[in-house]
Amino acid sequence: MSGLNARAGIVVTGTEVLTGRVADANGPWLSERLTELGIDHAHTIVVGDRPDDLRAALEFLARLGVELIVTSGGLGPTEDDLTASVVAEFSGRDFELDERLEARIATILEKLTARWPDLDLEAVAHGNRKQAMVPDQAAVLEPVGTAPGFVVTPAEVGKPTVVVLPGPPGELRPMWKAAVATDEFRAAVGGLATEYRSQQLLMFGIPESEIAETLRVARARGVDLDALEVTTCLRRGEVEVVTRWEPPLQPVYDAFLAVIRERHADTIFSDDGTSIDDQVAALLSSRALTIATAESCTGGLLAGRLTERAGSSAYVLGGLVVYANEAKTALAGVDASLIEAHGAVSTEVAFALARGAAAALGADVGVGITGVAGPGGGTEEKPVGTVCFSVCHGDASLTRRLQLPGSRADVRDRSTTVALHMVRRLLLGEHD
Amino acid sequence: MSGLNARAGIVVTGTEVLTGRVADANGPWLSERLTELGIDHAHTIVVGDRPDDLRAALEFLARLGVELIVTSGGLGPTEDDLTASVVAEFSGRDFELDERLEARIATILEKLTARWPDLDLEAVAHGNRKQAMVPDQAAVLEPVGTAPGFVVTPAEVGKPTVVVLPGPPGELRPMWKAAVATDEFRAAVGGLATEYRSQQLLMFGIPESEIAETLRVARARGVDLDALEVTTCLRRGEVEVVTRWEPPLQPVYDAFLAVIRERHADTIFSDDGTSIDDQVAALLSSRALTIATAESCTGGLLAGRLTERAGSSAYVLGGLVVYANEAKTALAGVDASLIEAHGAVSTEVAFALARGAAAALGADVGVGITGVAGPGGGTEEKPVGTVCFSVCHGDASLTRRLQLPGSRADVRDRSTTVALHMVRRLLLGEHD
Repeated sequence: MSGLNARAGIVVTGTEVLTGRVADANGPWLSERLTELGIDHAHTIVVGDRPDDLRAALEFLARLGVELIVTSGGLGPTEDDLTASVVAEFSGRDFELDERLEARIATILEKLTARWPDLDLEAVAHGNRKQAMVPDQAAVLEPVGTAPGFVVTPAEVGKPTVVVLPGPPGELRPMWKAAVATDEFRAAVGGLATEYRSQQLLMFGIPESEIAETLRVARARGVDLDALEVTTCLRRGEVEVVTRWEPPLQPVYDAFLAVIRERHADTIFSDDGTSIDDQVAALLSSRALTIATAESCTGGLLAGRLTERAGSSAYVLGGLVVYANEAKTALAGVDASLIEAHGAVSTEVAFALARGAAAALGADVGVGITGVAGPGGGTEEKPVGTVCFSVCHGDASLTRRLQLPGSRADVRDRSTTVALHMVRRLLLGEHD
Repeated sequence: MSGLNARAGIVVTGTEVLTGRVADANGPWLSERLTELGIDHAHTIVVGDRPDDLRAALEFLARLGVELIVTSGGLGPTEDDLTASVVAEFSGRDFELDERLEARIATILEKLTARWPDLDLEAVAHGNRKQAMVPDQAAVLEPVGTAPGFVVTPAEVGKPTVVVLPGPPGELRPMWKAAVATDEFRAAVGGLATEYRSQQLLMFGIPESEIAETLRVARARGVDLDALEVTTCLRRGEVEVVTRWEPPLQPVYDAFLAVIRERHADTIFSDDGTSIDDQVAALLSSRALTIATAESCTGGLLAGRLTERAGSSAYVLGGLVVYANEAKTALAGVDASLIEAHGAVSTEVAFALARGAAAALGADVGVGITGVAGPGGGTEEKPVGTVCFSVCHGDASLTRRLQLPGSRADVRDRSTTVALHMVRRLLLGEHD
């Protein structure tokens, strides 16, 4: 890839993020936003709450020659929140109290403090004052929570502009929009002109090595893959191929896409950015079908995933979590003798669970999942990772027994993906 | 903090991680392992699959003077997996095919390929050869999947040693243990001698600003907080304070702890590293109690969380996902007139759900959750974020209506945390 206008780096601060007590939601989100703007993003650096480490990260990115640095976190009221002062120093700017900003934050805090009757108002005032300190010449981004953000231009020409954002994603995201709209931001990245295109292909039911071979086949047929940016990865049981290219290279991508379609037509389920979750939601909604689940090893995760999106109440009626065998019988009406004869983890019981879920909730589509998530409970005949699935709709059904790799969490998560793919296939007409 | 023996940096590779299509599980996990060994870890850098970006990250860490770099990812069979060759070059080492390693990988692949009948064996052989390329003088870490790892010592004195690990956590974790056991690793970090202590305190039911004030109070009383490393953060509705100190500073920590306990005694629920999930599991197990859930807005996430741990079948009987009002009535026996009178989101319905879950599954403890997760569905009286909870055990019960902040996903996740805290409090004797 070449020809992109500006380059940026992301610095995520917080010892809790560095050490993994909190997962970083901001680095990936900011990366996507930068890419959308045609800004090349090569490094995200996670640092703890130590000023020297933050300084080193900023200086590394400056040395790489990026035009823009985006930081997240470290703007809170506590003493370990030091981003604003370190950035001011890095940018060669004084760091001063903005009394009007202090007053605006105080107004916000008044509302919040009403929720906590025993609050120490001294503490609140102290935090308020700290959060109203502003690097000289910075554009102030009005707080969404209580922390303002900043777009800090460097005192010295040639150094990067720094966008300073708070850590909570609910604050960072709207404030990012405000940052992009500032003159300071536009000046730093020089107009955001380069257009690019990208496509994501999702496949289900093949190993990643098959894609590696497809890349070699494409090269052998003369496709100039070096002109494209191709990323492949395996996640949640799906293989993802994302390609990015500049418009003049469209014929190169078309040639590449033709090779992929030729080799993987039957496993590509998405070429338009939709996830399997999107597709199942659309299939159910568009046909006014309702769905219900009966889950053993996944313990409610499939129902949780189906109800992730707003509006899912239009098609999700509910579900049964039938962890104990007695629950399978009492709630989903699975015959105790069926469990006795085939075992709780069996295609027979999965089928009965799917039927039982649909019946108990009066749903059009039923899903049953039963398996050995591990780490214990495996046998020679049914080792850890054995999961049986069944989906039914009217008289049609699809029932499968699979052997899934990975940890307990992997098996449970992967099972929800498999179940969604089986619902999709059933609704598209495939059945046993 | 001072006196730690060695310093390390982590480099996580993969465009899919940089752009957030896959969440990084390895950076945080490796950070914890380094910290346990007394190795100071200040930076985790996420880079895409571009050799120049990986090289820049390695060189940045080398310039900081770290003794050790740990990389994850980029060891797969596809062309964008380039970590091993870039590290060989960075370390000034030749990069050569190890034929005996190639044969060992081939043996592993034979077993795997049996699972994919239509596999392209040419592709497999090509990937095999790529994964058997080894930097000269490196200690080879035997593959857990198909990719070997390496501990690469630098050709030049003063540069860091690099531990090269594969991306899948199920492979990386056992191979990390093998890496730590090598002479090359020990030599790089010089014996791992410094002992340190740490404690995590978890609180529920206070805002983070209260902790900021506690830090100021501690300083005002003469506690030398600069001698400790204190991190505070808010996550999933809980406030976490983690402190790390060297053994001679125990009295400083004791004084700090006394201030915290004095100010926050009623909200500290954990000082021994246990999570609320651990505590609920232990309370149920130790009393041989069973639990069942009836969830509306959380859609199965509480049941999913309760069944996260192996062995949870000892106390989780199952649950009801009662998304539709008809399901609340049909499955949990909630009177339709009760829903009519108070609305589906009401403490009355939450109470009926808790009782209904316990009755339907024959469980000792019942939990009911009903709320407005948003973004739609809010009213003036019951805005988005309004969630009603009830837990019951025999005749005792606890019922609450709360207003939770954040997005749909935040409200749903936070609700599972609140429910677990209410179960804990009920089992410890608190009730309405």
